[in-house]
Amino acid sequence: MDERSVGIVETQYFTCCEPPHELTLKCKEKLGPITVAYETYGVLNKEKSNAILILHALTGDAHAAGYHKGSETPGWWDSMIGPGKAFDTNKYFVICSNVLGSCKGTTGPVTINLNTGKPYGLSFPVVTIRDMVVVQKLLIDHLGIKKLLCAAGGSMGGMQALKWSVLYPDALESAIVIATNYRHSAQQIAFHEVARNAIMADPDWQNGDYYGKSVPARGLAVARMIGHITYMSDHSMEEKFGRKVIDTERLGYDFSTHFEVANYLKYRGDSFVQRFDANSWLYMSKACDHFDLASDRKLIDAFAGVKSKFLVVSFTSDWLYPPTQTKQIVKALKANSLDVTDIGINSKYGHDAFLVEVDNQSKAILHFVDRVAKEAGIVNGK
Amino acid sequence: MDERSVGIVETQYFTCCEPPHELTLKCKEKLGPITVAYETYGVLNKEKSNAILILHALTGDAHAAGYHKGSETPGWWDSMIGPGKAFDTNKYFVICSNVLGSCKGTTGPVTINLNTGKPYGLSFPVVTIRDMVVVQKLLIDHLGIKKLLCAAGGSMGGMQALKWSVLYPDALESAIVIATNYRHSAQQIAFHEVARNAIMADPDWQNGDYYGKSVPARGLAVARMIGHITYMSDHSMEEKFGRKVIDTERLGYDFSTHFEVANYLKYRGDSFVQRFDANSWLYMSKACDHFDLASDRKLIDAFAGVKSKFLVVSFTSDWLYPPTQTKQIVKALKANSLDVTDIGINSKYGHDAFLVEVDNQSKAILHFVDRVAKEAGIVNGK
Repeated sequence: MDERSVGIVETQYFTCCEPPHELTLKCKEKLGPITVAYETYGVLNKEKSNAILILHALTGDAHAAGYHKGSETPGWWDSMIGPGKAFDTNKYFVICSNVLGSCKGTTGPVTINLNTGKPYGLSFPVVTIRDMVVVQKLLIDHLGIKKLLCAAGGSMGGMQALKWSVLYPDALESAIVIATNYRHSAQQIAFHEVARNAIMADPDWQNGDYYGKSVPARGLAVARMIGHITYMSDHSMEEKFGRKVIDTERLGYDFSTHFEVANYLKYRGDSFVQRFDANSWLYMSKACDHFDLASDRKLIDAFAGVKSKFLVVSFTSDWLYPPTQTKQIVKALKANSLDVTDIGINSKYGHDAFLVEVDNQSKAILHFVDRVAKEAGIVNGK
Repeated sequence: MDERSVGIVETQYFTCCEPPHELTLKCKEKLGPITVAYETYGVLNKEKSNAILILHALTGDAHAAGYHKGSETPGWWDSMIGPGKAFDTNKYFVICSNVLGSCKGTTGPVTINLNTGKPYGLSFPVVTIRDMVVVQKLLIDHLGIKKLLCAAGGSMGGMQALKWSVLYPDALESAIVIATNYRHSAQQIAFHEVARNAIMADPDWQNGDYYGKSVPARGLAVARMIGHITYMSDHSMEEKFGRKVIDTERLGYDFSTHFEVANYLKYRGDSFVQRFDANSWLYMSKACDHFDLASDRKLIDAFAGVKSKFLVVSFTSDWLYPPTQTKQIVKALKANSLDVTDIGINSKYGHDAFLVEVDNQSKAILHFVDRVAKEAGIVNGK
């Protein structure tokens, strides 16, 4: 554990929306109770004005930084959260919660439906990015925070950051929006659709009713493999694997795994099955596909009531959420005379860059957050 | 039927490599007999010097132009082959054969193995681009053609054209190499690998032994859906589908097909199952993945003995076989002082452009073929 780690952390739980106070979701269905898994790092100041909400991507969780007791694997954005890091826990109170519909502690399809005594499965209502954000707001209220200093995330996390700025303009000082789109494009929907088809084509999926039986492991692995290709760039894949084979003695004249890139994807697919629920993958991917901040208005109008300051980050080799898409966000924000910092980071790592390009991203984020804090009258987190 | 159609055509068959004269494949296994399905359009001149061999892509077939009796669907490259078209059947004798290992009339995994009385299935040897070309050469020999005026193809067809130039330098006047790579990159292998995994994950696949039973329809459909995403550009997908939904009354808060792009991919996936064999897909994709013209030497050395003239075509929005890759081919050919015409066509259609960008492609091909013919002493096909 390095000295800039937040150390040993524990996931906490918050339950709300207990019947008869269920939450009405965007799909009009009611849901409750809702439990939210979350973690916090650093100290909330007296004014409760130094809180930063970290928003995770498709398959992320509340464990963004530090270590769970007995584990040697740090949180998913540990390189960015800690003392002296991009999100500096010496100054700021950092919160990360698992999104609604996921399978990492927050209520989702894997949760027991109290009315039936069985996991929701596909009877769980289809959630949207809006619903995730509404539940996050309930958590923030519960923590007594009136206004977040910042909401920050990449990919699906970036969608949530955008939605925060639109839904709660008075509760958000700033948003950091990384490697994302203001609405899913046809190609982005298409990749998700094929992956969902792979899961639903697995006979073990059983229309989502597989809990306690065989999980749709083959379908979910294929879905994850598709994802991994889109997360890497052509360049980084070529550099990492090229045409290397796993066994130079074999010539590969059969259909077993031959190339290293295939071996890697298979490994990532198979290990994903151990840590993620297939139904949750369906719900998370669908939430992204439904996301459309503009809907039937112009994007510029969608940002009309927004008050936050923005840092928008894109990566040159990200072909899944290419810089041309974040440029549209930047353009619409600027057209609303908002305070926007637009950073394009030169990277070979594709969409994965938001997880691995630590140095350049950290510089931009550190500078932005400190500036926003200072302008809000917060110095050194106080 | 337009006046520039080659009209009604019929697939012909040629059988060779009858035991004990089996063909030794690159994997060292012997195969025979081998039947080749092929079609021809136009007239072979007296000197047999005006023949052009068309090479099809992954899921193509011998039916490149004209109409089969009773069918209203023309051949797959009908827009490019016919009287006055890119490959002008008023002047040239055009041949197209189905490749070895496919399922469209040429011997492949779906063929009955005469030794067992059952379809080969996965006991069919793994074929390579080289093997496909060797079988094409046997067909050309059978037709009494000593030297092809041209071998032309896109995608996997382009790989075959390159291989022709290396394997049979004295039997090839020119090659037209479209939207391809001289060896499959890690990303290209990765997309194929995931698609193969989708097929092999389908319980109906049964290790390839599914003939006469249920075909692995779900797996093959997913494989095809992945393919279709890579064949289109982000731009063309956005323009064609955007976020359009199939039923505006429904809000899509479930996991049935909602977006038009999803509906399209599902349709293409399902209809593909009706026309293509899952095992053949495995063999075709593997042949592409194995393809490496340079292997352990430099690409420049791979072209050392080559004598053909080249037309190399790429499309700006083709992200599956991007122009940067064809540029490497062009560079290596030029370093060998070969006669190379390098055309980059501005297109929004992605990899599909080689099938749909008829005008610009036709101009370049018409001009190139006529020039090569003239230099070979052939005028107006004579």
